[in-house]
Amino acid sequence: MPKLHWEDFFAGQVVECGPLEVSAEEIKAFAAAFDPQPMHLDEAAACATMMGGLCASGWHTCAMMMRMVADGLVLDSSSMGATGCPEVKWLAPVRPGDRLRVRVEVLDTRPSKSRPEMGFVNARFDTLNAHGVRVMTLTSHLMFGRRPPASAADGPRAAAP
Amino acid sequence: MPKLHWEDFFAGQVVECGPLEVSAEEIKAFAAAFDPQPMHLDEAAACATMMGGLCASGWHTCAMMMRMVADGLVLDSSSMGATGCPEVKWLAPVRPGDRLRVRVEVLDTRPSKSRPEMGFVNARFDTLNAHGVRVMTLTSHLMFGRRPPASAADGPRAAAP
Repeated sequence: MPKLHWEDFFAGQVVECGPLEVSAEEIKAFAAAFDPQPMHLDEAAACATMMGGLCASGWHTCAMMMRMVADGLVLDSSSMGATGCPEVKWLAPVRPGDRLRVRVEVLDTRPSKSRPEMGFVNARFDTLNAHGVRVMTLTSHLMFGRRPPASAADGPRAAAP
Repeated sequence: MPKLHWEDFFAGQVVECGPLEVSAEEIKAFAAAFDPQPMHLDEAAACATMMGGLCASGWHTCAMMMRMVADGLVLDSSSMGATGCPEVKWLAPVRPGDRLRVRVEVLDTRPSKSRPEMGFVNARFDTLNAHGVRVMTLTSHLMFGRRPPASAADGPRAAAP
C-alpha cells in the first residue's frame, strides 16, 4: 500500500524533492540521444551560442525534474500519471555541476467526476539550482488513486450471532 | 550558413519530421534513468496499471519529438532555442515498436522588439504514431536568428572610380 493517496494532498502544501547533480557528461549524453544542438553537445561550440557555454537541453531538465519528483513523491504514492502540463518555462540555463532541487506546491485538488476511484492534483513544480535561481517552472495535472475504504476486516467486528 | 532563418517561416506552414521507432529497451532505459514508474519500467508491472501495458514516459516522448524536430528542422537553421511550452498534452500511450513522426505547424511569427537580430516562431508540434493517432501535442515559442543582410561583396559593385 503506497503512503500517499489523493486525500493526502491539499492546496498550499509544499513538498521538496532532490537534490540531483548534473555533470557535463550527462548533459552531452542526453543531447547526443535527443537534442544534438551545439549548446548542449560541445563546450567550444556552446561558447559561440547565445547560451555562452554548455547547458542542458530543456527536455533534459524536465527529465531530471521527473526523476527527483519520482523519488521524492510519486513512487510512494498511488500516482496514475499525468495528462500534461499547461505550462513549461525554461528560465535560466542548467550548467555542468549544477545541483538541482524541486519545490512542488499543490495549487488545488479535486475528485474525478467520471472515476470515483481517482482524483486530480494540480501542482507547480519549480526547479532551482544551488544559488536558489529558478531554472524551470511548470504546472501539471497529476492523477492519484483515492484511499480505499477501510475493509470490514480492519474495522470494528460485528458480534458473532 | 544554415538553410532556415526566421524569415523562412510563415503562419500555416507545415513541416513533417521523423520517423523514429521506439523499442521496449529504449522505453525501459529512459524510465530507469528518469521516470522509474511501473508502467514505463516493466511489462508485467505495467499490465497491472491503468495503462494496461508498457508505455513510454511522457518526458521520453517529448525527448523523441525533440530528436525528430532537431534532425528535420532545427539543426539546419539559425535556431536560438526556445523559452518554453505554453501547453504539453499527453493524449495516448506510446508503445514498444511505435513508429512516431512529428507534424510541425507554424501558428504565427513576429520579430523581436528588443533584439533586431532575432525573431519568434510560435508553432504546434503534433506527435503521431503509425496509425495516425496523435499521442502528444505541444506548442512552443522558438527563437531564430534573422537572415543577415547581403554583404556589399555579394551585391552589385559600384564602378571603380
